[in-house]
Amino acid sequence: MTDVLADLGEFGLIKEITARFPPHAGLLIGPGDDAALLSAPDGRVVATTDLLLEGRHFRRDYSSGYEVGRKAAAQNLADVVAMGARPTGLLVGLAAPGDLPVRWALDLADGLRDECAEVDAYIAGGDVSSADRILLAITALGDLAGAAPVRRSGARPGDQVVVAGRLGWAQAGLELLAAGADGPRELLDAHRRPRPPYAAGLALAAAGATAMCDVSDGLLADVGHVASASNVRVELSSAAFDMPEPLRAAAAALGADPLRWTLTGGDDNAFVACLPHTATLPAEARQIGTIAEGSGVLVDATPYTGPQGWDHYRRP
Amino acid sequence: MTDVLADLGEFGLIKEITARFPPHAGLLIGPGDDAALLSAPDGRVVATTDLLLEGRHFRRDYSSGYEVGRKAAAQNLADVVAMGARPTGLLVGLAAPGDLPVRWALDLADGLRDECAEVDAYIAGGDVSSADRILLAITALGDLAGAAPVRRSGARPGDQVVVAGRLGWAQAGLELLAAGADGPRELLDAHRRPRPPYAAGLALAAAGATAMCDVSDGLLADVGHVASASNVRVELSSAAFDMPEPLRAAAAALGADPLRWTLTGGDDNAFVACLPHTATLPAEARQIGTIAEGSGVLVDATPYTGPQGWDHYRRP
Repeated sequence: MTDVLADLGEFGLIKEITARFPPHAGLLIGPGDDAALLSAPDGRVVATTDLLLEGRHFRRDYSSGYEVGRKAAAQNLADVVAMGARPTGLLVGLAAPGDLPVRWALDLADGLRDECAEVDAYIAGGDVSSADRILLAITALGDLAGAAPVRRSGARPGDQVVVAGRLGWAQAGLELLAAGADGPRELLDAHRRPRPPYAAGLALAAAGATAMCDVSDGLLADVGHVASASNVRVELSSAAFDMPEPLRAAAAALGADPLRWTLTGGDDNAFVACLPHTATLPAEARQIGTIAEGSGVLVDATPYTGPQGWDHYRRP
Repeated sequence: MTDVLADLGEFGLIKEITARFPPHAGLLIGPGDDAALLSAPDGRVVATTDLLLEGRHFRRDYSSGYEVGRKAAAQNLADVVAMGARPTGLLVGLAAPGDLPVRWALDLADGLRDECAEVDAYIAGGDVSSADRILLAITALGDLAGAAPVRRSGARPGDQVVVAGRLGWAQAGLELLAAGADGPRELLDAHRRPRPPYAAGLALAAAGATAMCDVSDGLLADVGHVASASNVRVELSSAAFDMPEPLRAAAAALGADPLRWTLTGGDDNAFVACLPHTATLPAEARQIGTIAEGSGVLVDATPYTGPQGWDHYRRP
């Protein structure tokens, strides 16, 4: 085993990485040809793509290669599940500097592979290039198995708004890392590696979700997308957010507002969904609000005035 | 219209870009949700991904935004066609600095759209982020319409080796640009915008190609992949390469070897295929060699000793 990518070469790296990926019945042609061939039994294919850039979406001093791999896969797999589909395969573009330790790149591959295994998905192919800083471009595909896709535009007045998964944990972890804190461990880990509740997302779709998305920009921003796509108002109740102990402790230590983390923190990849008020909620889901006529998002009947979600270009 | 991306913001940019993409019957859910939904009537989906980085794969002083868009789409669409599949949709990850002119990004989108139109494909979705330099991550999907995929591994001794499309033009154009030359125009344009002969690629598949790939790393490198995947030897005849006038003129001007460009120049996205010797060649295809027992690649019965194709990491 050589030490940095420049020693191994592009084709050597591809060989080392692909050797780490097990075969899968759904992957008809895997890495090594001009393109991959994936089973798509539904006759439609769900597809989503995301960029992760070193220094913007992750830092090597905050996260290991393995954790970046888990996170990169998770946020794309969550997008597929948010459509009500089962993830099938991932395509991975990786650009990295020639002095990157080979170990880091292989750990990344292991992280991608292990996150895929959570939903029985696989790595179908990819591309490797060199760049001054690490960048990842992930595309995830999925299959609806005959079901209707769950869009953002189907919410109706009277629906309950529910969430499955953690809110604000990743943002709290990031702010703790930025402050040089070494705990609480579960919050630091939440930033390093989100844990989307994939099964709960699929259960929400099966329970009749009229709209769903994963929380990646922050709860308010993401339900805002649902509100505008569905032409409805989202009314959230802050009392519905049980504030878990680690969030309260971290907020006290940093002088931060845990409600802000909950409402605007991204990257936990929770699932927020709207369901008819008669629907039976999956065990992992809790109601946090309702859908009304109108537009926009209210928290406790008023617009939330704190900082909002993330815009990659907008000047503050 | 504002001037640079930082003024427009991430969501403003996405809105401006997606407004330029026409609807398509195969795109069931387009940009704006967690994921896109594409028709995949075959029940299998071909998928490939490529990274294009400013400074490595393109330069803004050599190519316009529109040309970069055409090129980025072309090289991915060619990979799909090289499997014998019709391209369906493209997903586009774009990261760019906040001071990039909005015009450049919109021209890029137009180039992507227009290249897709060449094969009746469409832009299905994407992601936008900020970065110090422009980077593009393109994923192309395709449909086999019931046909068997054309892999690299099916070449058999006795097959004819044929090519459709240009070889060495893009590399000649790049070297001309690097030398500050302002012509021949058709070579500069060949670097800026490859013209994969998509119809000829599909015709080669229909004519019974046993193996095929697009020429992106250079002919020798790419037929080398076929040789190793198929466990055969590729024997090329340099006499079969008609050396077009612009290549000869440029080689004379630069003191370069036009055969080197033809054998090792990438980025023209020609299609090289192997077909049984009894097969009837499509009009656009010409034979350049044969498949024999053995391994490796020979040119005029000897190994080619000039510089080989591209490795993104390997130190020279």
